[in-house]
Amino acid sequence: MSKVKVSSFSVSLDGFGAGLNQNITHPLGIRGLDLHQWIFKTKKFHAMTGADGGETGVDNDFFAEGLEGTGAWIMGRNMFGPIRSEWPDNNWKGWWGATPPFHCSVFVLTHYPRKALEMEGGTTFHFVTDGIESALSQARKSAGSKDIKIGGGVSTIRQYLAASLIDEMHLAFCPVILGRGEALFTGIDLCKLGFKITEHRNTSEVTHIRFKR
Amino acid sequence: MSKVKVSSFSVSLDGFGAGLNQNITHPLGIRGLDLHQWIFKTKKFHAMTGADGGETGVDNDFFAEGLEGTGAWIMGRNMFGPIRSEWPDNNWKGWWGATPPFHCSVFVLTHYPRKALEMEGGTTFHFVTDGIESALSQARKSAGSKDIKIGGGVSTIRQYLAASLIDEMHLAFCPVILGRGEALFTGIDLCKLGFKITEHRNTSEVTHIRFKR
Repeated sequence: MSKVKVSSFSVSLDGFGAGLNQNITHPLGIRGLDLHQWIFKTKKFHAMTGADGGETGVDNDFFAEGLEGTGAWIMGRNMFGPIRSEWPDNNWKGWWGATPPFHCSVFVLTHYPRKALEMEGGTTFHFVTDGIESALSQARKSAGSKDIKIGGGVSTIRQYLAASLIDEMHLAFCPVILGRGEALFTGIDLCKLGFKITEHRNTSEVTHIRFKR
Repeated sequence: MSKVKVSSFSVSLDGFGAGLNQNITHPLGIRGLDLHQWIFKTKKFHAMTGADGGETGVDNDFFAEGLEGTGAWIMGRNMFGPIRSEWPDNNWKGWWGATPPFHCSVFVLTHYPRKALEMEGGTTFHFVTDGIESALSQARKSAGSKDIKIGGGVSTIRQYLAASLIDEMHLAFCPVILGRGEALFTGIDLCKLGFKITEHRNTSEVTHIRFKR
């Protein structure tokens, strides 16, 4: 049966899932990229960007598995782009170029309506203005029996967590401190939500933790 | 030169250094003991409690090293015991029995005066009522060229961090979620305080991180 999952989401040791001050040159906020170094080294990421090489092993396995079986994505507007308030035009088409790596429907949470945007490679961005439950309902229809991924950012994951709508999470705890940023868990009681740690794998890069409920 | 250090302090993946509701049967709060399993398995801990056996290796090395070269300890009153407000009498002598494992002066932060308490094995508990800086000043005199350990709990470490008085920390991030408890870093900017990660060692039990500035 279709599940709602977070995969390969990186967290700093001081609890932040992104840096501050996201903008066009800092898609993940100041120093946010430091959290994703483990991904950039994997063979799977290399392949996704058309490059040869990259490392195999546990990090690669987790990253690759996190992309499998996905029928739809949901993301916050800030994960889609740096533009705030009204869309000035239709020129911004995400951070990922003409062929985004999703290859299915992606539901973007926003307060500002915009027409769906069909990209190459099977990705269509749908802009959802009536809340997280509507986005999930649309994603479920689109995904069929496949899984739905909550891509991020922090605020989006927190909203779905707080609403008890996430079934599984794979987080990668990185040996990085950001000092400031967007805190993932502050005020969220993972135990009360029913999560348990079901897998714990250390690599030289990160600590992979799988939570299920 | 003498340094102010935190050693072998355990933190859950959701950022808590202790559980809630500390009392006589839960010295570390509800489920707080889950954070310390890695210590209980070590040869050094076995030896401290008069037992044979225990594991050697990285966890043991970190735990043993954290006790070396210590000339004085500072701890919050809740780490000393479960009693709140005025001391009813002098009967409570800490969690550790007649021979506490400190073997030097221990400065206990409290709002309620009490006479110093000399224990077997070289430990003397001094009760400090005039604040964290006074406790540190007294600990420095007592420690001479040796290090001062900030033992805990969370509130005490946070106060010394916020006052920029800690030089080094070794934290053990455990694959445990507590859901609720005492958050170690919320509102504390480790980068602004000048900390950098200088060591990162994964074991099957925990992720050891050393921070220096």
